[in-house]
This record gives sequence, C-alpha cells and structure tokens, in this order.
Amino acid sequence: MNKQALSWRVEAQDGEARAGVLETRRGVIETPVFMPVGTLGTVKGMRYETLEAEELDARVILGNTYHLWLRPGAETVRALGGLHRFTGWRRAMLTDSGGFQVWSLTGLRKISEEGVEFRSHVDGRLCFLSPEISMEVQASLGAEIVMAFDECAPGKLAHAETKESMERTLRWEARSKKRFDELQGEEADAGRTEESAELSGAQALFGIVQGATHLDLRRESLARTIEINFDGYALGGLSVGEEKEVMYDVIARVAPEMPRDRPRYLMGVGTPEDLVEGVARGVDMFDCVLPTRNARTGQAWTTEGKLNIKNARWTRDERPVDDACRCSVCQRYSRAYLRHLYITGEMMASILLTHHNLFFFLDTMRRVRQAIRFNEFAKFRREFLGRSLRQEASESALEH
Amino acid sequence: MNKQALSWRVEAQDGEARAGVLETRRGVIETPVFMPVGTLGTVKGMRYETLEAEELDARVILGNTYHLWLRPGAETVRALGGLHRFTGWRRAMLTDSGGFQVWSLTGLRKISEEGVEFRSHVDGRLCFLSPEISMEVQASLGAEIVMAFDECAPGKLAHAETKESMERTLRWEARSKKRFDELQGEEADAGRTEESAELSGAQALFGIVQGATHLDLRRESLARTIEINFDGYALGGLSVGEEKEVMYDVIARVAPEMPRDRPRYLMGVGTPEDLVEGVARGVDMFDCVLPTRNARTGQAWTTEGKLNIKNARWTRDERPVDDACRCSVCQRYSRAYLRHLYITGEMMASILLTHHNLFFFLDTMRRVRQAIRFNEFAKFRREFLGRSLRQEASESALEH
Repeated sequence: MNKQALSWRVEAQDGEARAGVLETRRGVIETPVFMPVGTLGTVKGMRYETLEAEELDARVILGNTYHLWLRPGAETVRALGGLHRFTGWRRAMLTDSGGFQVWSLTGLRKISEEGVEFRSHVDGRLCFLSPEISMEVQASLGAEIVMAFDECAPGKLAHAETKESMERTLRWEARSKKRFDELQGEEADAGRTEESAELSGAQALFGIVQGATHLDLRRESLARTIEINFDGYALGGLSVGEEKEVMYDVIARVAPEMPRDRPRYLMGVGTPEDLVEGVARGVDMFDCVLPTRNARTGQAWTTEGKLNIKNARWTRDERPVDDACRCSVCQRYSRAYLRHLYITGEMMASILLTHHNLFFFLDTMRRVRQAIRFNEFAKFRREFLGRSLRQEASESALEH
Repeated sequence: MNKQALSWRVEAQDGEARAGVLETRRGVIETPVFMPVGTLGTVKGMRYETLEAEELDARVILGNTYHLWLRPGAETVRALGGLHRFTGWRRAMLTDSGGFQVWSLTGLRKISEEGVEFRSHVDGRLCFLSPEISMEVQASLGAEIVMAFDECAPGKLAHAETKESMERTLRWEARSKKRFDELQGEEADAGRTEESAELSGAQALFGIVQGATHLDLRRESLARTIEINFDGYALGGLSVGEEKEVMYDVIARVAPEMPRDRPRYLMGVGTPEDLVEGVARGVDMFDCVLPTRNARTGQAWTTEGKLNIKNARWTRDERPVDDACRCSVCQRYSRAYLRHLYITGEMMASILLTHHNLFFFLDTMRRVRQAIRFNEFAKFRREFLGRSLRQEASESALEH
C-alpha cells in the first residue's frame, strides 16, 4: 500500500496561517476547517441534507467512538456497513478515540497500563477500552480519520504527573498505530472505498500531542509522536482548565513545530475567537460542541456578540438574531419568534439556533480561508478580534 | 365590501367526493386538503422551508388560538404584525376558536352562557374566553380562516344535553359572526392584505355544526348555522369518543347536506383511512395532530401499516420506513438508524418521522385529488381501504 489515505497540500500561507486542501476518500476539505460534532451519528437537530447544502456545506463531521460503541454498538454499525451507510452521511468523518470521554468519567473509571476500565453512563455496565479496542471500534465505524487512543492530561497537572501521563500516551499511541495497521491490512475498515488514482481508500490515523502546559513535555511528546509516524497530528489536552492565554501560548509554541506537510488538528476547541487564534498559530482543523450545544440552551453567536434568546427584551423584537448574517434563519425568523419557540419548549428553537450557530462558525472559517489566500489574514484577525473585544464590553447588556 | 374573503369552486366530482380549488389571500389550496397542525406557531420539528418545498408543499396550516393566546399572547402577536409575520409562515393559515381546548380542560373550566372560565394549563391563571374574545384574538392572529366559537358535545352525550349544548353553540356562533363582522369593519385583522381582483383581503369565518351523534340535532344545527351565513362550514364534535362507524355515518348523512358552494371541514380528524372516508362522504378539509404527535412517540404510517420505530426487530434493518415511499427520509435513512435516534433520545428521530408522516398524509391527499379528477376515486378508495384492512391483520406483528 504505497498510496496515502489522505492527500494534503498547503496552497497559501500568511504568517503561520495556512490555507490547504485535504483530500479524503469521501470528498475534499478546504482548511482551516471547523468540524461539527455528531456525537451519536447525528449533528443534533441538523438534517444531513441541510449540512450538505450550499449554505452550510460542511465537508467533515465528527463521530464519538465512546458514544457509538455503547449505542448502537460497534458490531451493529459494522453489520450495517459502517457509520456512513448506517447514518446516511456521505461526506468525510473523523472519529475520536473515546479516550477523552472515558477520562472524563471521573470516579467511574480506573486507568491502568493496559487501558481504562469504566462504567457506562447509559446503564452502569462495566466496560474496558484500550488502544487496541479503540482501533477495532474505529475500524467498525469506518471514518476517514481515526484518532489514536490517548490520555488527556488536564491543563493544570503538575510536571511529574504530566510526564507520566505523556509517557503512557506515547505507549498507547504506538499500540494504536500497530493495531491500526493490522486492521487496515485485514481490511477491517468498514468504511473502505475503492482506491482512487491518488488515495488508497483506507483510513488515516492521527497522533495526539499531550503534555498539558509544560512546553518541554509538549515538545518531547511531539518529537516522539512524529517518530511513530501518523497521517496527521493533533493537539490534545487543551481547553481543559488552563487559562486561555496559556492555551494560546502552548499552541503558538507547538503548532508551528508540527510537521508542515501534515494537517494539524486542535481538538475540542473552541469559540470563534479561539478558531481564529488557532489558525494564526498554524492550526488547520478544529471541532467543538459549542455551536450545537449552546444553541440548545438558547445561545446564539452574532457579529455583535453572544445573544441569549431567552432574554425578555426580545419578546417583541422583529430583528433577526444577527442583522449582518446571511443564513436562512436570519433571513426569515425574528428574535421574538425564536424566543417564543424557546420559552414554549419547541424543538424548533434548537433546530433554528443550531443552524444559525453552525453557519456562523462555518462562515467564519470560509472568511478565514479567503483572508489567507488573499494575504489579508492579519487584517481579518485584527478586525475579528477587535470586534470581539468591543463585544466583551457590551456583552453583559446582551446577555442579561 | 362585496368581494369575498375566499373564492371556492368545485372542479370535479366523483360520487360525493369533490376536487376543488380554494383561493385565499395567501395562496391557492387544492382540496381535499390535509392541514398540518402548528399549535404554537410551529409545526413541531418541521421547518417552514421544508413544508413549503415541492416535496411536501403544504398550502395551509393550523394555529391554535388557545395556545397562542396564552403564549406569546394576542397583543404580542398583533404588535408583531400578526401570526404570519411573527412566525415567518407565508402561506394560508386557519385558526381554531379555542373552544375545543378550553372544553377539554375538564375540571379546570366552568361553562356559562357568557363563555368559559378556565385556568391556564401553563400557569394556573384564571382566564375567560367567549365568542367575542375568541374573535378578537383570532383577528390579532390574522389567519385566512377564522373558526366560530362553539361548544364541543362529546360523542356519547344524551339527546337532551346535546340539544342544550347545540342551542348554546348556535347562540355563540351568532355572537361570533356579529363580533367578527365588526372587527373586519374596523380592520382589526392583523393579517389583512391588499384586495386582489377577486378577493377582499379580509379574513373568512367558518361556522361549526354540532349535535353529537343525534342526526336530528345535526340537521337542525346545520340549517340554523347556514342561516347565520358563513364562508365555510365545519363538522365539529366528531372523533370524541363515539364509535368509528357512528362517526362515518354522521358524516355520510350530514356532509352531503352542507352547502355545495362552500368548503366543508371535518375538524380534528383523523387517520389516513378517516381522510379517505371523509372525502368519500363529501368533506374537503381536514386537520389532525396524528402525523406529527405520533411521530414523536416513534410511530410511522406506511403503505404496509403502522410501524413502531422503537421495536428491537429494526436494530439492524437497513430498509427505509416504507419501501414504497418517495419521501426524502425514506430515500436516505434506514429503520435501524431511525430506531437508534429514537432510543438515544435524539430530536432527529422526531424530525425525520414527522417529515415522513406528513409526507404520507399529504401524499395520500394528492392521490385522492388525482383520483377524483380522473373519476377513479371509488377504485382508489377500495384499494386504499383494502390495504388498510389487510394491515389490520398484520398490524400486531408490526407493532409488537
């Protein structure tokens, strides 16, 4: 198998920011890219038809190994031909390893060298996840991009504990790679496609750099992860308790040292400002539940700041969520209507706010890509963040 | 004001079944028509864009006066320019009078000659609804079709009590008409449009025939309701406890006697079979919560009978909900996926099943209209109901 699972090229660079094209066996992804999260095989409240249509045009979404493994189960997804065939999503997918979710089950899990024993949040059943099992489950899911099984070291973990955790993650990543390669050799990948002129039709595997906020550990983690040799590299363990400035600093120091010829993925981050700041430091891929999860609690992102749709001041406000927004929700529906839907518990509130928020995130990334290609990213970033800073001042008014 | 609010013509008749065209100030409605219910200003889980698109092409939806009066309130809807502007729905709407809802609040309401005192199901607040208030609220909502305020006599009510209730309804309908005419004269209608060549741009008012299952009372109610003179006539108080055969019999005896030059509306009914049976007896308009409400509890209508998506037998079933269905849900999603969405509590289960069920109801009516125009309605009905009868036999297997 000499052909790659992914083809990746940088087409424009502006400072550290890169505009690139990531070709997968299920479509081309322009980067920097934001990946909506589809935890259980659905981006909550968004039909795939809507995600695919020109307005949103999401090229890649996330699936969560932990959640899909518990329900409907890896064997069921495999029996149904993998996650694409099972869910009806035809474009690219990335699955996480489940490592972050089981690590988050504090009090319900026990970590050993072999893996993580935990109790399912669904039915309390005792389960065990390891690098090998994660790779097997992810082969059954059949996403285009598979993540290595790692341990997430939280933002403020001390040096010694972080090093211990990082060493374990490196061993787990090596085991992930070994099992992943075996599975690809056995054609266990349920999402396999015919080889194309350029691509092998197999899955790609990304490694994850850990090390919390300790730069020496981050660098060591990076160097040794590269030695294992992955199709792309991710920054894990950020936005998990550390200060925002510390996170930006870690990204600024580590991302530019990540291989230039591979996509760089900042996991689980973040706000639109975080995306722009990540791009400025050389990151290509992002995912986060914020636009979808916060929509369901009535929060919308707008060019004027965050907006809480529950606020009584919108009761008779005929304006759209965002006057400057071109999304179909803002073309048709008022704050008054969305507030009414939210207050009366109608699922349409979640559906429409999720659509708007995803448009805001995806459209921001479209603008980011364009700015990089026109060599105007510094200007774009200044204006975007300047607006955000002005928002901070007015935010309390909008929020409360 | 010599021009009518509605223009109505029968274009084909096949037995008692009529295919007609109802022109409203907000679009043309081909009848027989099924009207999806949009209780609180949204058809739960269905974006208006989807209802309008060619696949479903719903021409008219219902709004509930009782619910919208309580939240967001008539004054708020009026301040926002009426229900169309408030909700973003651009096509025709019909609002009920609130009579049925307050009557349903058994134990929480007190009926007097003046109207109904009741406690709000939202906050227990004491409220009062009367024919005059219902007309005022419906003017603020501004739907194309307004319903007179009536009292619903349940299916099995005795003759004397039914007569008493019917007499009260007749007095309430006369009061409804009087207040409605005043409000139209005052241009209180928030949904008013410019007059067209044919239509006045005002609202239309429908009267409601009551009388439970007592045919003499039904006939008397009809004759005296016609005397008041409405733009259309409805059959109320059916599908509220009486046997199905009794309901069909009442419709068969009363509907053909309803004015031929006005649309006939069977309120709150029913299953696809009920729609076909209603059309066969001369009914033109229907509404019911079944396709939307039952979707949210996992029930789908199919050409093979009802299907309970929760059933474990669908866990690995790759077939669509209905092999014979042309809807976009059946083109893309499997029973296995829909079941997974339902079991995991994803709102996408409700969204997709609602879409499928509404397609089934609206498509059935498309076929009904076509059959009438081709003079093949008897054959259509025989085949449709024959299939239903065969389903009865296999239903327990599908359901359980």
